[in-house]
Amino acid sequence: MHPLDEAIDLKPGAPNTFTGAPHPAYANMVGPFGGTTAAQLLQAAWLHPERLGEPVALTVNFAAPVAEDEILFLARPARTNRSTQHWVIEAQQSGDTVATATAVFALRRETWSATEAVMPSNLPDPASLARMPSPGPIRWPQSYDMRFIEGPFPETFDEQEQDHSRSCVWVRDEPERPMDFASLAAMCDSFFPRIYVRRRRRSPIGTVSLTTFFHADSIQLAQVGSQHVLGVAKALNFRHGYFDQTGEIWSPQGQLLASTHQLVYFKD
Amino acid sequence: MHPLDEAIDLKPGAPNTFTGAPHPAYANMVGPFGGTTAAQLLQAAWLHPERLGEPVALTVNFAAPVAEDEILFLARPARTNRSTQHWVIEAQQSGDTVATATAVFALRRETWSATEAVMPSNLPDPASLARMPSPGPIRWPQSYDMRFIEGPFPETFDEQEQDHSRSCVWVRDEPERPMDFASLAAMCDSFFPRIYVRRRRRSPIGTVSLTTFFHADSIQLAQVGSQHVLGVAKALNFRHGYFDQTGEIWSPQGQLLASTHQLVYFKD
Repeated sequence: MHPLDEAIDLKPGAPNTFTGAPHPAYANMVGPFGGTTAAQLLQAAWLHPERLGEPVALTVNFAAPVAEDEILFLARPARTNRSTQHWVIEAQQSGDTVATATAVFALRRETWSATEAVMPSNLPDPASLARMPSPGPIRWPQSYDMRFIEGPFPETFDEQEQDHSRSCVWVRDEPERPMDFASLAAMCDSFFPRIYVRRRRRSPIGTVSLTTFFHADSIQLAQVGSQHVLGVAKALNFRHGYFDQTGEIWSPQGQLLASTHQLVYFKD
Repeated sequence: MHPLDEAIDLKPGAPNTFTGAPHPAYANMVGPFGGTTAAQLLQAAWLHPERLGEPVALTVNFAAPVAEDEILFLARPARTNRSTQHWVIEAQQSGDTVATATAVFALRRETWSATEAVMPSNLPDPASLARMPSPGPIRWPQSYDMRFIEGPFPETFDEQEQDHSRSCVWVRDEPERPMDFASLAAMCDSFFPRIYVRRRRRSPIGTVSLTTFFHADSIQLAQVGSQHVLGVAKALNFRHGYFDQTGEIWSPQGQLLASTHQLVYFKD
């Protein structure tokens, strides 16, 4: 079983509740990688017997470090309409809230469609690029195969401020795993903190809020399979302890699979 | 009293609850303008006796049309840390959920700061531009003074598809009102649907999820006062009934006050 599938293998409990735990393959500096927690929160709605359709929007707020202990997930369909469903989700440990989330699920229909964002072009193939070595002993980056075109995790924190924080990277689960909403939700948090790319300076950071819009449905995700997808990310603003980070995940065939936006605390 | 202040003048009830109502100055096609509802949801946390600091992130999910009737706001501080506070907020009418929200509040500190996004330059002064006439009988756009530089609400729905959906607009509350978090939260939803700009074709639409990151604190907002601020917006992707819309609000002095991202349903 793939580590991500183990991580999202939540056990149903009382109505609207599931239990799970952090997975060692996604361990971070303190607690688990937030992307995996986001995937678990989404999975609590996905597994719910009253689920309608597929996710189109997910917001996760990281309220406290998640301990290496059981997590209780509470997933409540707050409103179910004909073609949309609104979820309020919460993760608790020992009775305390460690994360909150909301999600919108929907039944999609064929409509006029168009992509206005522009995927970077003339990119080298993933196979022609070296896989990024894991930056230090942290476990979760080893659960991704990342091949950077621009803006990698700094090789050295030399405190040479860069003039931008843009990154462009081919990424896939490691080991390989067919793309689905759980892996896409997690991958949307796999961009390293923009402030590291920009400042090349160590500073404690922590995502406080992460929003992902899913532009793809499960059919499109199945077509991606276990290929690398392209991630692009940048920051818009750093100010007084918080910066934002905005990203896109593209299929190799040029379909925008997700757009994702997060707000991150930084210490100094 | 300014209409927006009337709209957010929520009355405290039982612990964690407030009541309010849609305001006629912000009436939309069906129910109220979502921006005002977002401001009300934020205000429920702002007015709460246990509030810590100021908002840094807000996500609102619009679950159902809001009726011209009393709204019950439930605002619960799910987690309060030393410098951050996580809110789960809900709006109900007659016992049914009409909107859900989460918010992160924080105490900010002075840190290294930088703006990476680029404000459009060489812009004409608001005073040199004509105020956009209200598009039809809908009331809420009349509560804003909008002066478009690019991408206005289409004068005619001639179904001539444009190659992009970008807008650039000077905007302020009408009548004038000093900027604060409530007006900024509302203004982040004041961009007209990108699909109208792109397709010049009428189609039923409705925002399902709206996320705003506040880059400014109350001191910076007070400095803006009642000046016009610059709004820029674009879409990244339209597909199978949903498109996203991403925007920035800039002070006239070039400070990024907020970045905002929404997912919008469209019928065809």
